[in-house]
Amino acid sequence: MADNKKMVEAITSMEEDFAKWYTDVVKKAELVDYSGVRGCVIVRPYGCALWENIRDLLDARFKATGHENVMMPMFIPESLLQKEKDHVEGFAPEVAWVTHGGAEKLQERLCVRPTSETLFCDHYANIVHSYRDLPKLYNQWCSVVRWEKTTRPFLRTREFWWQEGHTIHETAQEALEETERMLNIYADFCEQELAIPVIRGRKTDKEKFAGAEATYTVEAMMHDGKALQSATSHYFGDGFARAFEIVFTGRDNKPQYPHQTSWGMSTRIIGAIIMCHGDNNGLVLPPAVAPVQVMIVPIAAHKGGVLEKAEALRTRLEKVCRVKMDASEQSPGWKFAEYEMKGVPLRLEIGPKDIEQNQCVLVRRDTREKTIVPLEALETEVPRLLTAVRDGLYEKALARRESMTYQASSMEELREIVSTKAGFVKAPWCGSRACEEKLKEDLGITSRCIPFDGGHQEHAGVCPVCGKETDTIVVWGTAY
Amino acid sequence: MADNKKMVEAITSMEEDFAKWYTDVVKKAELVDYSGVRGCVIVRPYGCALWENIRDLLDARFKATGHENVMMPMFIPESLLQKEKDHVEGFAPEVAWVTHGGAEKLQERLCVRPTSETLFCDHYANIVHSYRDLPKLYNQWCSVVRWEKTTRPFLRTREFWWQEGHTIHETAQEALEETERMLNIYADFCEQELAIPVIRGRKTDKEKFAGAEATYTVEAMMHDGKALQSATSHYFGDGFARAFEIVFTGRDNKPQYPHQTSWGMSTRIIGAIIMCHGDNNGLVLPPAVAPVQVMIVPIAAHKGGVLEKAEALRTRLEKVCRVKMDASEQSPGWKFAEYEMKGVPLRLEIGPKDIEQNQCVLVRRDTREKTIVPLEALETEVPRLLTAVRDGLYEKALARRESMTYQASSMEELREIVSTKAGFVKAPWCGSRACEEKLKEDLGITSRCIPFDGGHQEHAGVCPVCGKETDTIVVWGTAY
Repeated sequence: MADNKKMVEAITSMEEDFAKWYTDVVKKAELVDYSGVRGCVIVRPYGCALWENIRDLLDARFKATGHENVMMPMFIPESLLQKEKDHVEGFAPEVAWVTHGGAEKLQERLCVRPTSETLFCDHYANIVHSYRDLPKLYNQWCSVVRWEKTTRPFLRTREFWWQEGHTIHETAQEALEETERMLNIYADFCEQELAIPVIRGRKTDKEKFAGAEATYTVEAMMHDGKALQSATSHYFGDGFARAFEIVFTGRDNKPQYPHQTSWGMSTRIIGAIIMCHGDNNGLVLPPAVAPVQVMIVPIAAHKGGVLEKAEALRTRLEKVCRVKMDASEQSPGWKFAEYEMKGVPLRLEIGPKDIEQNQCVLVRRDTREKTIVPLEALETEVPRLLTAVRDGLYEKALARRESMTYQASSMEELREIVSTKAGFVKAPWCGSRACEEKLKEDLGITSRCIPFDGGHQEHAGVCPVCGKETDTIVVWGTAY
Repeated sequence: MADNKKMVEAITSMEEDFAKWYTDVVKKAELVDYSGVRGCVIVRPYGCALWENIRDLLDARFKATGHENVMMPMFIPESLLQKEKDHVEGFAPEVAWVTHGGAEKLQERLCVRPTSETLFCDHYANIVHSYRDLPKLYNQWCSVVRWEKTTRPFLRTREFWWQEGHTIHETAQEALEETERMLNIYADFCEQELAIPVIRGRKTDKEKFAGAEATYTVEAMMHDGKALQSATSHYFGDGFARAFEIVFTGRDNKPQYPHQTSWGMSTRIIGAIIMCHGDNNGLVLPPAVAPVQVMIVPIAAHKGGVLEKAEALRTRLEKVCRVKMDASEQSPGWKFAEYEMKGVPLRLEIGPKDIEQNQCVLVRRDTREKTIVPLEALETEVPRLLTAVRDGLYEKALARRESMTYQASSMEELREIVSTKAGFVKAPWCGSRACEEKLKEDLGITSRCIPFDGGHQEHAGVCPVCGKETDTIVVWGTAY
């Protein structure tokens, strides 16, 4: 047990220092390592397996809704980046520039893509000529680069991995529907697979994507009450099409501009998983994306028949879940702590006494609840408990969010809440950028979104800054 | 039929201009599009689906042999690239350099990875301390950049996609075994899944990877008799470990250098698929990686019940293969040509007469052979025919390679063969770099490999250049 204790003690507790707790977890659960390139991380096998599970589940949802993957170049010529005015203003200050190929100076600088709207638009201008060519529903999985000053693993790194969907449609209506469809896919994915409750809403103009007409978002609350923007979906109208001269011949035989969207979720979501579900023993992974869903720990493994029985259970469970067995010489106590740290949703313990009674012990990572399970019931009990872990995580996160969400109807209330409590505050907002900026300046809060659910109400109240009557409610908070 | 004819005529024939045939196929089968970035391509949905199938099959083989995926940064600091002498000499002349982040000039230039040995070594130096930490069997899927002067889609582009395995072992023996294991996985994958026969062998010192002690290769022959290096596997000994100061405490409690390997297959392999199996009607895809394995074309689709029946067959076939139906208003003739161009292995035709007789027609892409199949036998006949397509492609490619492989025992014979015939020539070689360079200079051929099978023979003959007796046979050819 000495090892066990040591390992648990090695993480800073959340209550003591949340930021340090986070860093400890990502390092000790072996999700990432720091690289020799400042601001860039190495995603280690456990973190990469987690991302691959996220990718596969999301990709299946994209394909089921008719999307196709492509692979675009990682470079954008400077002149191409500059074609859409708002877009270049938003991204140019933080891109990495390639100036030389081998020993030769390039005639035109290339930036490493910070996002690929410009490349997709350039391609669409080549391949979209008629309404028959529409829609194109494309997505790509890749990494992108933004030259951030301050970085933290998963939350903000100079290079990060993501998917970026880019679609182009005949009508504004279709593009708007796509923007909503993809936001709903993200929300459903977060809630069902990651057990993270999210608020769906629309960003204010100040917070929207550079070049978008509207940005939709899913916002999650972390353990410390801060918000994490978990995915976004943008409606571009025909702004990019005009800038990139994408023109198609419509059903009326006249030239028209198409309407576009883009949407993305990144490795940031791993930060959300950590900070939404983790505890002082380490990671707690939602079963749908956990690289290992059940870890088998043989007890008194030196005794005759234990390892064989454990291996037999592993073989049986392989058919219903992602299962591993740790047959190493480490003590059971060390193994318990190790796989708690790694957030494995279920631990299966089996020793000589269990074998005698034809049973095993299943321990939930989230609640540490133990269930004694007859071996013949394993194939039904394991999936049932995995579902229970998912449900438990979701309910807990939802209850926390609800208990940490406040209402304010005046500046005094807002100030009082923000200065004494962590969490979200719902408050009326007049719609002016000046009032939004004033709240950031005075209270340090930013608008997370105008929620789809309850964001527009008759007599919502008065703006706490300017006192104007409004029907709009904004969710305010501090964000990662 | 007018459309059909037009589409077929739109490809240059192989015999007329093989290079142009190739470019026509990649464009018209919609595998790639050119991008606004010189030397970089866009991999379109059909090409991307092909690559994803290749990735998934290879990845499963890697995981089954204990490998784990990671994600490394795309940048390498200049000082890190320079740590291993041979390696930097091999790659520095052709890397892209990032010199600015946003408006700021970087203190140290970063290159975009041309390959990631240096990054893996830097990471291994951090995480490998004891023999208990070994082996690490890592792989990553990513794109890399080499600033090539002349580019061609898939065969040579400035950015290309690949996987790169990087492993580190306690002993030289283990690392050598890994190098061979991975080469055999590539060879087996090429032959079984891609139906491309390959020659396994070792590269001469001149042709080996920059920094490797030994490079193993699988070499395939294209339609025009040229060679395409389809994958390589490198044994590094402890050279990189010494350069990067990777040291572990051995079982004897003493500091030791570990032994390393790396191995890779890239989107080049798509070029091999095209040029090994394609014909004058377009692509011919091996069933294991074809995005669509069976395309259903309803005949006289306007007649009652045809579309419904075709859709019912599609639903049935979904359980045994990747199937699509084209219910568009294009003529059957147009569709036949279109899916031949796209290399779909099997076409299923169903019309009113077939329905009457409770049958359908299956047409093989490779031989155009038609089989009338009773509908109740569909689930067994389709997989059988897909296997037959794979076997047919393999046999045809193997027969071609054998008929285009020659033996030479003197300079006269070599010169005669090379000047009159396309293909491979097996000839004795003394082992000297000077003789190898002379053959390149005089005859324009390069050594493809010293084949594992037959590369070493008692009394192999005399080197055609210097006349020295040798026991080594080299496969010579011209290469993509």
